Amino acid sequence: MTIKPRRAVLPGRFQPVHKGHIEVIKWALERVDELIIVIGSAQESHTFENPFTAGERMLMIREALREINVDFSRIYIVPVPDIQVNSIWVSYLRSLLPPFDTGISRNPLVIRLFREAGLRVLKPPVYSRSEYSGTRIRELMLAGAPWEEYVPKSVASIIKSLDGISRLREVVKKE
Amino acid sequence: MTIKPRRAVLPGRFQPVHKGHIEVIKWALERVDELIIVIGSAQESHTFENPFTAGERMLMIREALREINVDFSRIYIVPVPDIQVNSIWVSYLRSLLPPFDTGISRNPLVIRLFREAGLRVLKPPVYSRSEYSGTRIRELMLAGAPWEEYVPKSVASIIKSLDGISRLREVVKKE
Amino acid sequence: MTIKPRRAVLPGRFQPVHKGHIEVIKWALERVDELIIVIGSAQESHTFENPFTAGERMLMIREALREINVDFSRIYIVPVPDIQVNSIWVSYLRSLLPPFDTGISRNPLVIRLFREAGLRVLKPPVYSRSEYSGTRIRELMLAGAPWEEYVPKSVASIIKSLDGISRLREVVKKE
Amino acid sequence: MTIKPRRAVLPGRFQPVHKGHIEVIKWALERVDELIIVIGSAQESHTFENPFTAGERMLMIREALREINVDFSRIYIVPVPDIQVNSIWVSYLRSLLPPFDTGISRNPLVIRLFREAGLRVLKPPVYSRSEYSGTRIRELMLAGAPWEEYVPKSVASIIKSLDGISRLREVVKKE
Amino acid sequence: MTIKPRRAVLPGRFQPVHKGHIEVIKWALERVDELIIVIGSAQESHTFENPFTAGERMLMIREALREINVDFSRIYIVPVPDIQVNSIWVSYLRSLLPPFDTGISRNPLVIRLFREAGLRVLKPPVYSRSEYSGTRIRELMLAGAPWEEYVPKSVASIIKSLDGISRLREVVKKE
Amino acid sequence: MTIKPRRAVLPGRFQPVHKGHIEVIKWALERVDELIIVIGSAQESHTFENPFTAGERMLMIREALREINVDFSRIYIVPVPDIQVNSIWVSYLRSLLPPFDTGISRNPLVIRLFREAGLRVLKPPVYSRSEYSGTRIRELMLAGAPWEEYVPKSVASIIKSLDGISRLREVVKKE
Repeated sequence: MTIKPRRAVLPGRFQPVHKGHIEVIKWALERVDELIIVIGSAQESHTFENPFTAGERMLMIREALREINVDFSRIYIVPVPDIQVNSIWVSYLRSLLPPFDTGISRNPLVIRLFREAGLRVLKPPVYSRSEYSGTRIRELMLAGAPWEEYVPKSVASIIKSLDGISRLREVVKKE
Repeated sequence: MTIKPRRAVLPGRFQPVHKGHIEVIKWALERVDELIIVIGSAQESHTFENPFTAGERMLMIREALREINVDFSRIYIVPVPDIQVNSIWVSYLRSLLPPFDTGISRNPLVIRLFREAGLRVLKPPVYSRSEYSGTRIRELMLAGAPWEEYVPKSVASIIKSLDGISRLREVVKKE
Repeated sequence: MTIKPRRAVLPGRFQPVHKGHIEVIKWALERVDELIIVIGSAQESHTFENPFTAGERMLMIREALREINVDFSRIYIVPVPDIQVNSIWVSYLRSLLPPFDTGISRNPLVIRLFREAGLRVLKPPVYSRSEYSGTRIRELMLAGAPWEEYVPKSVASIIKSLDGISRLREVVKKE
Repeated sequence: MTIKPRRAVLPGRFQPVHKGHIEVIKWALERVDELIIVIGSAQESHTFENPFTAGERMLMIREALREINVDFSRIYIVPVPDIQVNSIWVSYLRSLLPPFDTGISRNPLVIRLFREAGLRVLKPPVYSRSEYSGTRIRELMLAGAPWEEYVPKSVASIIKSLDGISRLREVVKKE
Repeated sequence: MTIKPRRAVLPGRFQPVHKGHIEVIKWALERVDELIIVIGSAQESHTFENPFTAGERMLMIREALREINVDFSRIYIVPVPDIQVNSIWVSYLRSLLPPFDTGISRNPLVIRLFREAGLRVLKPPVYSRSEYSGTRIRELMLAGAPWEEYVPKSVASIIKSLDGISRLREVVKKE
Repeated sequence: MTIKPRRAVLPGRFQPVHKGHIEVIKWALERVDELIIVIGSAQESHTFENPFTAGERMLMIREALREINVDFSRIYIVPVPDIQVNSIWVSYLRSLLPPFDTGISRNPLVIRLFREAGLRVLKPPVYSRSEYSGTRIRELMLAGAPWEEYVPKSVASIIKSLDGISRLREVVKKE
């Protein structure tokens, strides 16, 4: 299937959105006409792995892209709950999203699933993985260490307005 | 909860997107800062009631709004599968969507659920209900009668490129 | 399996609880030691068939039984969501409920499922079916006709405090 | 995808298995190497539309095919619960079944879904539709009219051993 | 929302019911009018974490409360299957339970979810956590050490009548 | 329930089918008339624990049994998705499978569930557990060590045709 405009799907959990995500989105927008950003594990929130709701993450992506003046007519942002059945995941995405012919990921399982479904795969470069990692940023938040520099300004401000740090601390506490 | 910017949720099935939908969206954009368009019954497709997939409907809304130069930075378009539990539907929306304090609908059940959840409700005027109705447009499609005038140009062209009319005819045929 | 004390399961939807239900419960309490009242279709609410939530129905049963001084140590009231798989429904009840060896119903499908699962079945007499019927009471509510006499006093008062009549009217209205 | 041996999927509800089904299976076995018989709506039983469990239907197909000496090494019989999402149904079948490149059906929706998924479609001839129809056979059963001649001998005998007629009658009775 | 009578929800897994649970229930009954005891993870059984079915746990709570002459007209005991979506869990409880305005828990995540939903939170004191812990009691059971003293007499006797110790041992065994 | 012919259910994950499985099947066919091979965790694939889809595993079993000339009229092969509710698992199997009175397993939990449901249990001998283990074979595959000798010839050839080794390697890779 050739799709015009060229449209790509970019899945992530965005817990939280960080500067690495933004670099990947900019990189992708140089290569495709339209980008569908999939917020995975949309049903999850209030855990260490996934502290923020899908709606909160959608807001973060939107405001972070506004900061850099992205043309929103080239972007879709879509929350997608997990289905736990790897073999039909790409079909499930196809049913929820506008037609796409390209998948963007560095995750080997995701790349495998994209390839078995016949998608073209783009693998973005690594942007300071040691710094720009959701897990690391959440650990910094827990430790009380500075984390704001790793995320866009608007994201830091959304997290604060959500009282996100204390939420994260509470959900990981043992009884 | 006061939310700044003022953000409203507008649910619909959009089977297909028609000019009445576009009028409601324009009406809403005069009253709120940001609009979250919820594509309901997102899991449905290939039936008379719901011929188009959520992804196809998302594309229709996007292209129809592009026709009238809507500012996409004020719009979210989100596919939401049904949950079949009315009493938690608004909470479910809250988990998937950015914070909102207003609901827009003419459907009495939806208005009831919005009100029980404490949302402000806006009820848009009727825009030629006799002409701008998804059911009526699908019936025209089946009957081979002209339907294109009731939908935005871009929507008509998406439906044709999807071979939508023959899909609709086939899914309603009896064996 | 012989179970001591003799314990029976009595499923219903209780939309709303009416005097016929109370008669059946009294009849059952003369025949078994303990009674498990199952509130079926617990996931449903805000429709004509099922206007009240499981929690609201649980409250109605409880207060109606308090009116007639039932010994609550002989009663369980348990909301049970539908599973849509008839062949495992009794097993599903067994997993959620204390051990029981008797089923109470007049519904032929329910009786059949109880019998195929090896339960003893008790079929209660009909108590003024023409008057004591959930469907008829909801129709009276919609018609603005008197309905209070068919339900226990406490149930009428719960329905009023829930603003139940206007909820029922709104959820059945067409757009 | 070319698949060797040529393998086809044949979906049905088989409520109950009748002589029309057997004719279609024989017709299919002349055209493909292996046949995957999918028992749809596998979660359903104890209703007028679906009186028999998936397991009972699987047994009926097996014994009916034994009667006509089908080579079982060319046949798969697989119960498949409904998923209610038309757009991913073929992918769902692909995940549960051995690789297949052909779909067999007369149902327009099923044919459409097979075609959109890129399958070759075989449409079997009608075998006395007026006589060989599950609905009609169930109606005969309810009416107490002769139905045995429309199903294979082994199927009639399985239905009797299951006490199937009285199950059917009970599940359709009103309270 | 002010609710009269004051009603609180107390969630737990009760694997098994122990004397610490009973102390918390007594403590709660001094502070609220009615108590809704929620048996969480109701779908679980036959594992080390959750050896007993929801129905068995419901029976344990009931009989343990009978021992201490609790007024059952002040108590609801409700099995609730997990939903795995933290952000809507309190709404889900609201749909299944009579109206409540108070949540009782020592679990930080649960307290957080209660607070975000606007509930009043009561945090009970710790009652010999080192002794009264479900995990510790299950470990004693596996080790063949005395465990009966940590649970109410009726609970010990229910566990024995269920052959609970050997069930626990079998489900943790490796092949 | 006595069932003629004597029919047994044999659950496994078959990731992949190995010679130990084949020995157990041969052992079982000497003891029962018909054997229902249940492919568990049918929804899983593309993970280290479950690399192959249910359909691929069904094909492996079929071809491995063809190698040893098993009479397919004595065998059912049925994919069964997990339900995560141990207490109703046997009922769930009953709804999907032809009637059976015997369960075959060495897994203590499975044996326990079979016994609580009143099934006769057959426990097969161990066939070189150290060699014939799915986990070990998958580890050999990952390590690039020889694994083919532990599986039937046809299974090795199916895995190769599926490009199974590289799938397994990719799904376990970290980003």
